[in-house]
Amino acid sequence: MATAQFAPSPTQPRLLPSQQLSNTTRARSLRLLSRPPRPARVRCSVAPEQVEAPVANPQQEKAPKNRASECYGVFCLTYDLEAEEKTRSWKKLINIVVSGAAGMISNHLLFKLASGEVFGQDQPLALKLLGSERSIQALEGVAMELEDSLYPLLREVSIGIDPYEVFQDAEWALLIGAKPRGPGMERAGLLDINGQIYAEQGKALNAVASRNVKVIVVGNPCNTNALICLKNAPNIPPKNFHALTRLDENRAKCQLALKAGVFYDKVSNVTIWGNHSTTQVPDFLNAKINGLPVKDVIKDTKWLEHEFTEKVQKRGGALIQKWGRSSAASTSVSIVDAIRSLVTPTPEGDWFSSGVYTNGNPYGIAEDIVFSMPCRSKGDGDYELVKDVIFDDFLWERIKKTEAELLAEKRCVAHLTGEGIAFCDLPEDTMLPGEM
Amino acid sequence: MATAQFAPSPTQPRLLPSQQLSNTTRARSLRLLSRPPRPARVRCSVAPEQVEAPVANPQQEKAPKNRASECYGVFCLTYDLEAEEKTRSWKKLINIVVSGAAGMISNHLLFKLASGEVFGQDQPLALKLLGSERSIQALEGVAMELEDSLYPLLREVSIGIDPYEVFQDAEWALLIGAKPRGPGMERAGLLDINGQIYAEQGKALNAVASRNVKVIVVGNPCNTNALICLKNAPNIPPKNFHALTRLDENRAKCQLALKAGVFYDKVSNVTIWGNHSTTQVPDFLNAKINGLPVKDVIKDTKWLEHEFTEKVQKRGGALIQKWGRSSAASTSVSIVDAIRSLVTPTPEGDWFSSGVYTNGNPYGIAEDIVFSMPCRSKGDGDYELVKDVIFDDFLWERIKKTEAELLAEKRCVAHLTGEGIAFCDLPEDTMLPGEM
Repeated sequence: MATAQFAPSPTQPRLLPSQQLSNTTRARSLRLLSRPPRPARVRCSVAPEQVEAPVANPQQEKAPKNRASECYGVFCLTYDLEAEEKTRSWKKLINIVVSGAAGMISNHLLFKLASGEVFGQDQPLALKLLGSERSIQALEGVAMELEDSLYPLLREVSIGIDPYEVFQDAEWALLIGAKPRGPGMERAGLLDINGQIYAEQGKALNAVASRNVKVIVVGNPCNTNALICLKNAPNIPPKNFHALTRLDENRAKCQLALKAGVFYDKVSNVTIWGNHSTTQVPDFLNAKINGLPVKDVIKDTKWLEHEFTEKVQKRGGALIQKWGRSSAASTSVSIVDAIRSLVTPTPEGDWFSSGVYTNGNPYGIAEDIVFSMPCRSKGDGDYELVKDVIFDDFLWERIKKTEAELLAEKRCVAHLTGEGIAFCDLPEDTMLPGEM
Repeated sequence: MATAQFAPSPTQPRLLPSQQLSNTTRARSLRLLSRPPRPARVRCSVAPEQVEAPVANPQQEKAPKNRASECYGVFCLTYDLEAEEKTRSWKKLINIVVSGAAGMISNHLLFKLASGEVFGQDQPLALKLLGSERSIQALEGVAMELEDSLYPLLREVSIGIDPYEVFQDAEWALLIGAKPRGPGMERAGLLDINGQIYAEQGKALNAVASRNVKVIVVGNPCNTNALICLKNAPNIPPKNFHALTRLDENRAKCQLALKAGVFYDKVSNVTIWGNHSTTQVPDFLNAKINGLPVKDVIKDTKWLEHEFTEKVQKRGGALIQKWGRSSAASTSVSIVDAIRSLVTPTPEGDWFSSGVYTNGNPYGIAEDIVFSMPCRSKGDGDYELVKDVIFDDFLWERIKKTEAELLAEKRCVAHLTGEGIAFCDLPEDTMLPGEM
């Protein structure tokens, strides 16, 4: 068992490793840095002198907003959506931020968002892409491909590397960016490195995003990253933060369908409880197949209690073996599912899983962590927890184990949540294989 | 200028290189092989003994078709779509073949197809993935991700490496797979290697696909690959074969929009004439911006005559520089656009570009090649050529140049189209940068 203490960064932003790592059993070279001042790096492929005088056209005559410092290419133009018949009935444009925007998950997700399949064919949108110094060129490539796709609903694309700039007025923040674990890095190290990214992004959301921004954290370890993010955004309701466990739910549904010999659309009410890690609890006690309890359909209890959970956990690793890379396509599908579950009413009697902030939960799970639980939505972007679930000893014991892990992770990042001195005593390494 | 003659493969299937390459100026090690017998390689992740007895459910009681030898995982199940209220109103399931299915373009495209955004939310589909020995594991990974995506419309997925098996009853064939050009390989060599692939796939389509299959060739050189493919499928109407020039059209629209300072949805009637190569002709003479001729809006004739075409041609290369890989996402978007243009009526007064077989074309372009031209569709999968286009000397000269290139490519693959001895005198290397 590795233990480590980290000093809180808000008060001691630039400690040397030797100062931070008092009372550690193993030395680590972690640096706790406050946000360095970074230049606002943006790109725009169309200079004013390149633009011809447009044809006489009513919406062109309005004074254009000056957005030249942040937009990209053809998306630097301004439009009056109300001036045209075909766009007049559209909803008000929404601002969607995607971090890690040059990565493979985003490369799938951005085009799904732009196509209208997520928010609907009457929802124009602005995509704000957050990358890093290293990825800014690739971000331009992404923006160019978005240009070439001619999506009518995609009205603005901007790219940048400073979250305080890119997160401006964000109504959705899809936080995918995270550092992958380097060779030899332990989970405590990963928690700290990515935790710092999410602390900064929480602060940035707090400073500049819409007060009702919905945040979905995908970068791992996503539950604790989401906790760090919401703790650093005290002016945004903690209820607005989600950690993505939807891919686990989808995989669990598929495995139950395969075992039962039914199509996956017959499987419902599947909860992933707890952490997006190997301690996650895919719940077969409350799940249903064709409206019947799973245990009435799948009699193989040994399979349910052991192989099922393992299959869900190991799916990512199995995929990497087959495919040579991680599951970007199905992850992005599950992000779409997670968003849709918040903007469309949940089907009667069903629910969906999301890692959400525990604050008065009805199950007796520890408060003040981000824990995946069953949720329902009226389609307004908000959700409520499902009350009519049952527990047995087998389920509850596993829930307590994943809860213990999340509490340990929380102690490990106390320096990033403003709760004092971090103390890392993670019981074992439970990172899912193939997770970024 | 490199010249080479190739013997026709139908009559001399296993010539040694020295026999083939009589009268060549440079030796090439090309082998013209007839289709070797290959084992039917398929995968199925659910064995019958793994499947529990299903719950009493009317549609489960029907005798399942034996598809175990070709299906994948949860898609091995059979369903009666008419037994359920929510699927009863759906259309009849369609079979869609995708070759190069383990590649990046397909990795975007397959999920778009499965989501219903291409063929509609009432169109169930079967995806048949063609790969190679080398990619069969990756294909399984793709099928697993499709499983995990829980798309309700996706009812069958099968994978294989033998086109005679995978193309069975195909109603759409999206032929993306092609060998990339190796170091030092000339265009003639690429034409021959990929031509052989497309000759074999044409024969397979001819043997087992639906008599009205629609074929979109994406693998490059796509025009000549499409010609080879249709020549090897004499029982399928040549009109059913397309070479993808839609990405070029989309890029041309975006560049015109950027130059004019308008959003891309204001640009219409853009034709790409000819070959998907650097000799392609993006037509600004007939194109419109806000319903007006482009030349009335963009007065910079120099830009139109030189920079515009160059920008369209060089977009792929520019993207590779930015992004580090080729434009898989926007290519897949353009394939979606190409399909949609055939299954939805073309908007009044507009058209779309597609590389189609010249057979009585009204423009005076050489017959019996695959040439990108302006098309309109009633949405029935078929198309007609647009008659009301104009030509000036500048446009016509460029059309003749791309026509000459396609005629030279045709002579170069005569051994693959059953038209005798090949003679390669390609004037220059006009492969688009970054094309597969």
